[in-house]
Order: sequence, then C-alpha cells, then structure tokens
Amino acid sequence: MTEIAIQPERLLQDLETLRSFGRCGSGVVRPAYSEADVAARRWLAGRMAEAGLQPVFDPVGNLFGLPPGSAPCLLMGSHSDSQPEGGWLDGAYGVIAALEVARASLECGGPPVAAVSFQDEEGRFTTLTGSRIWAGLMPLDRADEMTDDEGTTLAEARRTMAALDGGAFVAPDRFTAFVEAHIEQGPVLDSEGGRIGVVENIVGIRSERYRFEGQQNHAGTTPMRLRRDAFQGLAEFVTLLNVRLAPLVTLATVWTIGHVALHPNASSIVPGRVDCTVQWRDAEVGRLDRMEAVIRTTAEEVAGARGLGCTRSAYAAIEPTRMEPALAARIEQAARQLAPGLWRRMPSGALHDAANVSHLLPAAMLFVPSKRGISHSFEEDTAHDDLVLGARVLAAAATAV
Amino acid sequence: MTEIAIQPERLLQDLETLRSFGRCGSGVVRPAYSEADVAARRWLAGRMAEAGLQPVFDPVGNLFGLPPGSAPCLLMGSHSDSQPEGGWLDGAYGVIAALEVARASLECGGPPVAAVSFQDEEGRFTTLTGSRIWAGLMPLDRADEMTDDEGTTLAEARRTMAALDGGAFVAPDRFTAFVEAHIEQGPVLDSEGGRIGVVENIVGIRSERYRFEGQQNHAGTTPMRLRRDAFQGLAEFVTLLNVRLAPLVTLATVWTIGHVALHPNASSIVPGRVDCTVQWRDAEVGRLDRMEAVIRTTAEEVAGARGLGCTRSAYAAIEPTRMEPALAARIEQAARQLAPGLWRRMPSGALHDAANVSHLLPAAMLFVPSKRGISHSFEEDTAHDDLVLGARVLAAAATAV
Repeated sequence: MTEIAIQPERLLQDLETLRSFGRCGSGVVRPAYSEADVAARRWLAGRMAEAGLQPVFDPVGNLFGLPPGSAPCLLMGSHSDSQPEGGWLDGAYGVIAALEVARASLECGGPPVAAVSFQDEEGRFTTLTGSRIWAGLMPLDRADEMTDDEGTTLAEARRTMAALDGGAFVAPDRFTAFVEAHIEQGPVLDSEGGRIGVVENIVGIRSERYRFEGQQNHAGTTPMRLRRDAFQGLAEFVTLLNVRLAPLVTLATVWTIGHVALHPNASSIVPGRVDCTVQWRDAEVGRLDRMEAVIRTTAEEVAGARGLGCTRSAYAAIEPTRMEPALAARIEQAARQLAPGLWRRMPSGALHDAANVSHLLPAAMLFVPSKRGISHSFEEDTAHDDLVLGARVLAAAATAV
Repeated sequence: MTEIAIQPERLLQDLETLRSFGRCGSGVVRPAYSEADVAARRWLAGRMAEAGLQPVFDPVGNLFGLPPGSAPCLLMGSHSDSQPEGGWLDGAYGVIAALEVARASLECGGPPVAAVSFQDEEGRFTTLTGSRIWAGLMPLDRADEMTDDEGTTLAEARRTMAALDGGAFVAPDRFTAFVEAHIEQGPVLDSEGGRIGVVENIVGIRSERYRFEGQQNHAGTTPMRLRRDAFQGLAEFVTLLNVRLAPLVTLATVWTIGHVALHPNASSIVPGRVDCTVQWRDAEVGRLDRMEAVIRTTAEEVAGARGLGCTRSAYAAIEPTRMEPALAARIEQAARQLAPGLWRRMPSGALHDAANVSHLLPAAMLFVPSKRGISHSFEEDTAHDDLVLGARVLAAAATAV
C-alpha cells in the first residue's frame, strides 16, 4: 500500500499561518463566526483548493475539502474556531494535519481523503454546534434560536458567513469513516512521556444555565437579615455542590462553574440577579444523571432557603461515546509502528466533534501530548516533533488495511 | 424672618425633567461622566441661571449655583449622577430641592442660598469622588490615576466635561454650612410611617478590590484535585466571611460583594482569575478595623490553602461622620414645626457627600422616606407629598435662627 509522505515544514507553516488569524500573544482569540474565524476559514478554503480538494461551506459554516471523484472516502479533521481566549492548537492541529494528509495522499497517489473544519466546536451557542447540526442531532431551525452569553442568536451569527454558504449540507454517504487528531488538552501523555494517545471513548458532558433572582438594593441601608442577595446564594450553591458531589464521583469526574454574571454588578449594590453555567462530565450516563439530580435539588434548596427565585435554561447533554473499535485498531497499528512503546489507549476527558460524527460514521481519535496538560489558554503548546509524529500516524492510519 | 415659599409643582417638574436624562423605565442610567450625566449637568446649569444663581463648574465636574453677592451663605445640594442602574431620586432629590429653595429664597428676599451637584457620588472611580476632591481629602493628580471597573482613568473621564470646566475649585469660605436632603434609601421611615429623618451620623464605609489568581485550564481534562480554580476560591471566601464576621457585628453592620468578574468567564474553562470588590459599613471605626482584619486574613488563608495568588487594590475608606449638632437642631426645629410627630433622629446607613463636606463646613442632612426601603434600583420611589414636605423643611431650616 502506498505510503503517504507528509511534509513536516508545510504542516508547521500552515499551523503558524492559521495561528495568525486572531493571534494574541502565543494563543488566539478566534471564537466561532468572529471576523478572525471567518477570515481563517476563507484562507483554509484556499489552501484546500491549492491541495487539489474542492472546498465546500455548508449553511452552518462547516468547511469540507473534498477530493476528486465521488467514491466514498475517509474524512479527517477537527475545528478551527477557538475559545474566547484559546491556544493555537486546540482544533487547529486536527484540521491542518487532515489537510496535509489529504494533500500528500493526492500527491503520492494514495487513497482519497477529505478534510473538514467544523464550526463552533467551542460552544459559543451549544457544545459542538457545527458537527451536532451536520450529524442531524439538532435541526437547524431549532439551533438558530439558541443564543450566546451576549444574547446573539445563531441565526444572526450565521449571517456573517452567508456569502460563503454553499447552500446545502455535504451528504454523509460521501464518507466511509471519520478520524480526528487533536491535542490531549490534559496532563496524561505529557506526565508519562507518551507521544500518541489512541482514544477509546469520549466522556459525556452536561451543562445547564442557572439563574438566581433576589432583590437588588442599596448595599448600605439594607440590613443583612432582610437581604435577598443572589450572589450569596450562588456562593452557597457552589460550596454545597463540592460537598454533595464528592461521594458520587470518580477521580476522572469533573464539574465546573466557569461563567458567572452578576446584575447589575456594581460594588455598592446588593446583587439582585446572577446567572451561571454549571457543566459536569463523566464517562457513565448513570453518574451524569445522579450528578444532575444533586445539582438541581441543591440549587432549589439554596434558593428556597434564601427566598431567591431559581430558573434553569440552555440544558445541553452529550452522552459518553465509544470510538469505533476497528478504526481505533487502525490508529493503534500505526502508533505501534511509528511510536513503539510511546503510545497508549486512553479516554478523552474533553468533548470532540468525533462524538457527534460517530452517530453517522465509524469514528476514532488520536491524541498528541499537551505540555503540562495546559489547554484553553495562551500557554497551550505541543513539541513540534509530536505534531509531526501525530500527522504521520494519521497518514499511516489512512492507508492501513 | 421671611418664610421661603417653595413651589411644589416646580420642584416635581424639575425632578421629572432631570429623570429624562438617561431615563430607563421608572429609573435612570446616568453614571458619572456619561453622556446623560453631562447633559443633565448642562441643563441644571441653565436652571440655576434661570433661578438667578451663577452656575460654576469646577475641574472635577462639580456644579455650583452661586447667589448674587459675595457674603458667605448656606450651601445645599447633593449629586445628580446615578448608579449604573439607579433610581430617579437618589441624589437628584437633594439637588432639585436645593435649587428650588435657593430660587424661592431669592424670589421672596430670603437669605442667600447656594446649590450644588457633586460629581461621581456613586463611586465609579472611588466613593464620593467629587466632594472628596473638593473637600481636599484627595489631591486631583492622585485621583486622576484612579480607574473604574473597565480600566478608564478619572483623567480620561474628566475630559468629557473639559468644555464646561471653570478652571478652578469654588472656595469653601464662600459658604457658612452645608445641608443635604436625600431619600433614606432604607426601610426605617417607610416602615414606621415617619416622613422626615434628621440624620445624626453617617456610617463609615470601607471597600477593597480582591484578586484571586489560579490556573486557567480546560474544564474537561483537568482533574478536580489538580485545579487551581479562582472562582472556587472566591465562593469559599464569601462563605467563610459570613461565618467569621457574624460574631463581630451589630444588626446595622453590613458587608457586600456586589462586583465580581471572572476571567475568561467561559463555561468550558476553569477560571484562572477572579476580581471582586468587598465593601463593609459600620458606625464604629474599631469595628470597621476588626472586620478589615478578618476579611484580609480570610482571603489570604483561602488563597494559600488552594494555591491561589491573592492581591488587594483600590482600598478606600471613609470614616463615620457625626453631623454638626447645632445645624441638625435647626433641621429638627423645622421638622417639629412642619411634620409634628412624623419625624425622627436616625443614622444614615448610606454614605453621602455631607460626610466629605463636614471636613470643611458644619454639615447636616435630612431624609424623606423610600417606599419599601428600595434604592439603587429602578423601583426606587417616594410619595410626592413627602418630596414636597422635605423641601419645605429644608426651606424652613434655611431661615431658622
């Protein structure tokens, strides 16, 4: 079988160029549908064309690069949007690695490979928006009503890409399987000196927005006993959750309150309202359900005891996903060959587009290490050798039988 | 002694007009130096001139309306800026009541009275910025370096009023004493059916900004035990403070965390940094000191135990202030006369410009009721009869011997 010879300097150069869109320090500020994100996608479409792939944007802004011919082929890729303040490799690595493998395979007469950059993987509107809609897990008209933290709807955001819209979704039967390369975004490979992770499953993730409503008032004249301070309620909720979730969880279970907004958020006003997003992840559906029950009852208890209103919204759930065993075995075979003794099977604590795509196609993932496990941060980084090795494993997996 | 006959309909009409600047629902959005605030001050200067007063803006944006002649006279007033989202009477009432008393006194040949609207009473930059600088409690060049929550400096904000700047501060020896009328902003008068409050002292207020710094990271791949989550630190800090302050305080003591900012504030990122402002008020310096010590040590303990950095900034303190007894007696005499059995002596739980002015001149205050004690809110309101009665008491106090 033809070996697909990727060009390391091209891989690294394309990663540098992609970083330049929305670059900020060593990281990027490139949230989905931002000017920088759309500019990056235009550039990616051009690079796909130069590589001999046909660039196709769908109505959500997912960008596919299709090889010549209509025979079903392997699809590789990830996403090129970033967190509000993200690193240069989260998503970008899998997109550029896929582009280079697809290009190199055409160049050397290997099997046809398609590349993709899904839109809004980072959850400006919901978790994995672009691949979720492409996989048919959420109808576009319902998705269009979803809002980001500023109240902008997806429908409004999509208009920024209207000029690029190919008008239709790429038919999934164009592809035989999906392989996503990604940085680990965790400390496992880095701390063990591993260089390739073969992903066995992706943890499930749930998230919900909570609103506590009390009485906005003057911070000097309202006696403590008469206050209905929404932020005090949130502080108690967060503190109680740590106590109540502890007995239910494993060492791999996580929960996070990462977004909080007080109203009116002024130092001389008792906060009348606070919104926060609670997110929790685990590999078992049953545990996710038990955590959900504890989170809901704790919020209602705290609110009830303090005379606060408590409402929930924007519930989102993605169940744990098992990677397709035969496809994972192809990646493992390539890792054995190219990184003997330096690879391992592992779960993904982070959610990835592969979780959505697995509803349509056999899907698998490979990881490269994240220095000190840091991601979703400007400090996110991976050794160049590991970036190149990951792409070589991806290329080998594309040709493996 | 001439009786100063105020015109109720003029008082209420001017209050309505002032509300129209930055009006939002029943309240106002008119923070210091905002477009609406500067427009309101221009209008006030015009009304002062129509009333026969000479309008004078100082470099900070404080607006004085000076009566004819140079004989030292009584100064009355308050402030016309609002909280980021405030009510229509907080500050505005004392300014318009002073303007009407000064106007009416000129009309009926009463004693000369000056009116003032101090700038940034609501603490965009620091507590009582305008009166603090006018009273010589903070040099202008130092004040100019202070920033608001968005990082704008006072120097930058002042430029929005440069065209109005008279170029100098009004000499305090132009005035014999200061009387400030204000809504109570608390529940005392309203709950007891009182109509006039004669203020005996103003509680002291301290505030300080705290920053907790941890490690920003991915909310899915960072095990709970390895996290340094700045917001979790804040939640514990807030919860512990309630326990540790309880034994130190009186029923009138208050503390508030009203402003909180997470960084980067995204639901899929472990917060790497959080800023908050802690504010505490009490009538005794010793108690304010003891609370300060508890707040500081608790923040350091929580940060230390969680591997977070903890830094403090923007410390501000205004000590408790006793109103000038003879001046308070003049107000009480007028209240006895005009609201027999419906007035009371009381402390002010809210801070007011009178606290700063008392460093220069004998100062006193009178309160009118706040419906349901609500203030710093669009719901803030006071019965028209009480607004008129308060202005009449103010006028009578101006003529009392």
